[in-house]
Amino acid sequence: MVQIVHFAGLGSMGLGMAQSAAKAGLTVYGFDPDARRVEMLAASGGQALDRNAPKASALVCVVLNAEQTKEALFGPHGWADLVEPGGVILGCATVAPDVARALETDAEARGLLYLDAPISGGAAKAAQGQLSVMASGKPAAFDRAANVLDAIAQTVHRLGDNAGTGSAMKAVNQLLAGVHIAAMGEALSFAASQNLDLARVLDVIKVSAGTSWMFENRAPHVIDADYAPRSAIDIWSKDLGIVTDIAAAAGLPLPVTETALVQYRAASAAGLGREDDAAITKHIAGRASICLPGGG
Amino acid sequence: MVQIVHFAGLGSMGLGMAQSAAKAGLTVYGFDPDARRVEMLAASGGQALDRNAPKASALVCVVLNAEQTKEALFGPHGWADLVEPGGVILGCATVAPDVARALETDAEARGLLYLDAPISGGAAKAAQGQLSVMASGKPAAFDRAANVLDAIAQTVHRLGDNAGTGSAMKAVNQLLAGVHIAAMGEALSFAASQNLDLARVLDVIKVSAGTSWMFENRAPHVIDADYAPRSAIDIWSKDLGIVTDIAAAAGLPLPVTETALVQYRAASAAGLGREDDAAITKHIAGRASICLPGGG
Repeated sequence: MVQIVHFAGLGSMGLGMAQSAAKAGLTVYGFDPDARRVEMLAASGGQALDRNAPKASALVCVVLNAEQTKEALFGPHGWADLVEPGGVILGCATVAPDVARALETDAEARGLLYLDAPISGGAAKAAQGQLSVMASGKPAAFDRAANVLDAIAQTVHRLGDNAGTGSAMKAVNQLLAGVHIAAMGEALSFAASQNLDLARVLDVIKVSAGTSWMFENRAPHVIDADYAPRSAIDIWSKDLGIVTDIAAAAGLPLPVTETALVQYRAASAAGLGREDDAAITKHIAGRASICLPGGG
Repeated sequence: MVQIVHFAGLGSMGLGMAQSAAKAGLTVYGFDPDARRVEMLAASGGQALDRNAPKASALVCVVLNAEQTKEALFGPHGWADLVEPGGVILGCATVAPDVARALETDAEARGLLYLDAPISGGAAKAAQGQLSVMASGKPAAFDRAANVLDAIAQTVHRLGDNAGTGSAMKAVNQLLAGVHIAAMGEALSFAASQNLDLARVLDVIKVSAGTSWMFENRAPHVIDADYAPRSAIDIWSKDLGIVTDIAAAAGLPLPVTETALVQYRAASAAGLGREDDAAITKHIAGRASICLPGGG
């Protein structure tokens, strides 16, 4: 039973997860290079994580990518040093399955358990403790992490007894989600080019065979011309890049996914990287000077 | 109130629609170049449509594309001649909005009403009278077609007072659906390359942000290695071709859609055109010698 949990990374997902853990009665310490994020945690039941913090039985690592995960866990100032023997590390970033397996090996070499635990659901669900976790790892790692998972997740998909499977499943989800957002951008730009009312398009498509979770979730952002970032364009440059790297290592061409990735990179190069991912629609429509809601 | 309705085209959609109309109490005549399809209609309450048939108050045209629609309606042996004055033509093929507008003009020049009425839902829903219709046309055309629409459709989206809007909405739906099937093919091939269990992938994705209507509907075909055509690869070569033609006329590049189209064309060239559209997965996985269920 974990009592003390450390969070490495208090970004849009990590902060909400740490707050959810505090709300669930755990003693939470959190670190982020941005001191304002640590203050936000301190204002909602947690404390700043530094070298003097008490050892944790669980460390949740919610950073951007594989490099940051390796550094945050096992770098010169890695937080794995502050996990008690037999404690568990939850790796939540989207990484390649090979990376997750290597992290598990590194953790076990230090006498720690490792859970390959990429997350899905967005910042709002993180703050409500209702994420989905696509998890794999040793049964002992699941057992040790049980009350932390209870605090942060609504659904834990238990996918296998070794790291790697969780990350592979997350990559499948990101492939689909990233392509679907780009498809939404093309569909709404196309609809606007034919003078269709986009609100009506949403009404019709959501009860038709063309619908997707992402279409229903993101099309309203375009209709409302609201590009405040819930999930940013640059997330997809990163995650679809991971997907196509994994696929390339398997010798598998993914033409549609690769084309979607090119669109996100182009949108980012055009200055839209920090906007909501629905802004891919502005990028696509802009090529043909098609007018979207808000005049974009 | 339509009593006699003619059907031009008794393919996988048209036959079921004609049978649904007969079941609803309408007097149904149907034509198809394949005499076996006419026999199937005759065995289920309809009759063969020929030049001696009584005039109809509604003609439902369910053929493959714009060329066949023009020929079946207004060609040298077009069935529009057998529609009574003031009767209504329902154009159900997927065509460009411009084509639908031209068909409306031609119909009105002959004293007939025209409903731009592309359909969605597949052969099973056609046979149950439960299609979705994305319809636009004059209020008088909707009024005249009311009991035919009641017989064939569960949902009629009434999208505007002129032909073209229905076809534009259908094209938006086909863009999304066609891209989503190709994305499913890439996602399942990718999952297989990472040794994920595809049935588990379906379970996880369908409750995750990566899901789509097409993913949930078609992934089971791959998992069961069942490629008997419900909707064929060649439908998407055709429909995404229409979408990209319309977009090109509007000066709008659609890179993801165009890439999906290339995949369907390549799969068709490789001999998969008449297989179920889920067979796009076999085509994608085959490039990397990845093994799918059924050994494909």
